[in-house]
Amino acid sequence: MCGELLRNDETLDDLQLKGICVIQKKNAFRFGVDAVLLANFAKIKKGARVMDLCSGTGIIPFILAGKTDAEYIAGLELQEEMVDMAIRSIKFNKLQDRMEFINRDLNDIKFLKNLPRFDVLTVNPPYKLKNSGIININDKNAIARHEIFCTLEDVIKATKAVLKDNGRMYMIHRPDRLADIICTMRQYKIEPKLIRMVQPNFKKAPNMVLIEGQNNGGAFLKWEAPLYIYNVEGGYTEEIHRIYGRQKSEE
Amino acid sequence: MCGELLRNDETLDDLQLKGICVIQKKNAFRFGVDAVLLANFAKIKKGARVMDLCSGTGIIPFILAGKTDAEYIAGLELQEEMVDMAIRSIKFNKLQDRMEFINRDLNDIKFLKNLPRFDVLTVNPPYKLKNSGIININDKNAIARHEIFCTLEDVIKATKAVLKDNGRMYMIHRPDRLADIICTMRQYKIEPKLIRMVQPNFKKAPNMVLIEGQNNGGAFLKWEAPLYIYNVEGGYTEEIHRIYGRQKSEE
Repeated sequence: MCGELLRNDETLDDLQLKGICVIQKKNAFRFGVDAVLLANFAKIKKGARVMDLCSGTGIIPFILAGKTDAEYIAGLELQEEMVDMAIRSIKFNKLQDRMEFINRDLNDIKFLKNLPRFDVLTVNPPYKLKNSGIININDKNAIARHEIFCTLEDVIKATKAVLKDNGRMYMIHRPDRLADIICTMRQYKIEPKLIRMVQPNFKKAPNMVLIEGQNNGGAFLKWEAPLYIYNVEGGYTEEIHRIYGRQKSEE
Repeated sequence: MCGELLRNDETLDDLQLKGICVIQKKNAFRFGVDAVLLANFAKIKKGARVMDLCSGTGIIPFILAGKTDAEYIAGLELQEEMVDMAIRSIKFNKLQDRMEFINRDLNDIKFLKNLPRFDVLTVNPPYKLKNSGIININDKNAIARHEIFCTLEDVIKATKAVLKDNGRMYMIHRPDRLADIICTMRQYKIEPKLIRMVQPNFKKAPNMVLIEGQNNGGAFLKWEAPLYIYNVEGGYTEEIHRIYGRQKSEE
């Protein structure tokens, strides 16, 4: 089975979650802790319809397929090569009845509006502004990291087009963009409802932020205690062990 | 000296900072840790002109007079009774050459615009929305805690009127208002530049937020590691000891 679906420059990575594996390129952008944290931050009810934007090889949809009772999970991704890998991952995991990947630009708002609306949207977008640093726009890693083909506003616009009234969005991003994130969400009436900062350890400044928004929600912003990746001795915290380990125990 | 300046229902509280004392009512709103944290968060250069809004009995201006080389520190306060106490505190501390209290409504933008501009503005405003909970508007404590006579937008408008181009504002507020704070600051082109969350301890959600803004500043938001008030054993953290203790050692 592996042989049919896997190319020479690819690996099949076990998510340690109900046996689900994801195909990734050996030498290209590979999923990191941020995708895992976002998939664990999102609250998804049984029977929910979920859309993941900037989905890449589909790591977030595959984790959600393993850990939630979502009825349908779609990933939207611009890069054809990534979608091809994600579709082969669906076949490998036999998740055709619950999952789908769509090879589209999230700026195609007309297309998004014609889809049935979603209860939940997740997105781990490119973090960096287009103009920050030297970028090779043919570089697939650059596309995943910089706002080349989608800006923060593009992401929020697409979210608005996709979510049901009162539907929830979950995003992970960089703290230095939080003012942009909050103001753009409010501009499109996706109200920030919950923020959780992510810190390397409790002595360091946050380097990621998890944010929940609600489409047309009322203004009240809750905060959770930060999520710490490492303890001061340099090992993973109990919570990080639990996030990865919980998946393992459910195999 | 005390006898002349102090009324029966008042106390004279030693700030443990170069001998400075502040007059407060025995049974009314008294300064808390938030004022001390804000005064320590503000970066004030030698010779700076500083304005403190919602100044109450002047706790922030008096700490700043003790710990900085600001040339001039003004406090603006609506409640006449508070300003009367603050002015007597100036006399007690013999700080007439550097300090002044102004009994004005911060909504008097015309008055504010006629003052020479300020390098730095500090504000520890009422935290709660006007409509949250039952409020007695004759209650001075309620005025200090609820947005009865000044809303967040009033504070930002007054800040805009007072600051020099590129001047800095420093505010302490509640995290649940951070979306309102950031969007209102941006609306008036006071760019959020630095955020520091304050947590009871590292396991708990933040309950205060320190924010620095720059008048007409460019968009880049830095974050510091959170400030923890207590360690997990329940004692004050080293940083809190240092904030209070540093003042003591400079006596």
